[in-house]
Amino acid sequence: MANVSCVFCSIVAGDAPSSVVHEDDVSLAFMDLAPVSDGHTLIVPKAHYAGLEALPEDIGAHLWTVAHRIGRAVRRTPLRCEGVSLTLADGEAAGQDVFHVHLHVFPRYPGDSYRVHADWRQRERPDLDATAALVRAALLG
Amino acid sequence: MANVSCVFCSIVAGDAPSSVVHEDDVSLAFMDLAPVSDGHTLIVPKAHYAGLEALPEDIGAHLWTVAHRIGRAVRRTPLRCEGVSLTLADGEAAGQDVFHVHLHVFPRYPGDSYRVHADWRQRERPDLDATAALVRAALLG
Ligand SMILES: [Zn+2]
Ligand SMILES: [Zn+2]
Repeated sequence: MANVSCVFCSIVAGDAPSSVVHEDDVSLAFMDLAPVSDGHTLIVPKAHYAGLEALPEDIGAHLWTVAHRIGRAVRRTPLRCEGVSLTLADGEAAGQDVFHVHLHVFPRYPGDSYRVHADWRQRERPDLDATAALVRAALLG
Repeated sequence: MANVSCVFCSIVAGDAPSSVVHEDDVSLAFMDLAPVSDGHTLIVPKAHYAGLEALPEDIGAHLWTVAHRIGRAVRRTPLRCEGVSLTLADGEAAGQDVFHVHLHVFPRYPGDSYRVHADWRQRERPDLDATAALVRAALLG
């Protein structure tokens, strides 16, 4: 299941160092080497899946449950944490850098370094309905 | 379970309009009114939970599974989608605007309007190990 050129597979195998916060049969959670904020954790499946298309749903749900627990836990640490962001980037266009699925969980606080900008323009209902119809069809197809 | 001042509770109750892509016993998924990109979908529990602390784990895992399916589905629509971002903001400090838990799923492509900036400085291993110990302790406590 391991990909020899994958840094997360190397971490799972114990061939690369990591600072682990949780481990079970199918997942590993460890500190991001270049955190957005102290406490920034990555949750990965132990097996190599490049992205959401390859990832089995039950493993995805398990990764999320681990992320949920870590998201609550970081608020109970002495680390600065007034909010929590959870993110997943699927594909290079989304900013995915390591092609082994990983969920990010990181503490947030006023004045932290994380900034998001986007063009959030409100759409008209007919446009939203038309888009919803496309997604609905793809979900069923 | 509904919060009378909550816009997502109003949508779940059918008292406010929405463009629905998925509905089941515990979750509803609908178009974001001010999307980052066309196809931007919100997945919410039908019951009102403000954030991750209140949200039951099994409902969280279900929301994620729906988000996983929608994340794969948007790539199969005619909408522009070369990657997918999944995000959840827990708390005002994380940018949460509606205090009814919601997962965002939105298509990404080169040149889209979504930009993230942060101060991703690499940390030393002893610092990462110390932080991991704090999170580990909070997970167990
Ligand atoms: Zn891998
Ligand atoms: Zn609500």
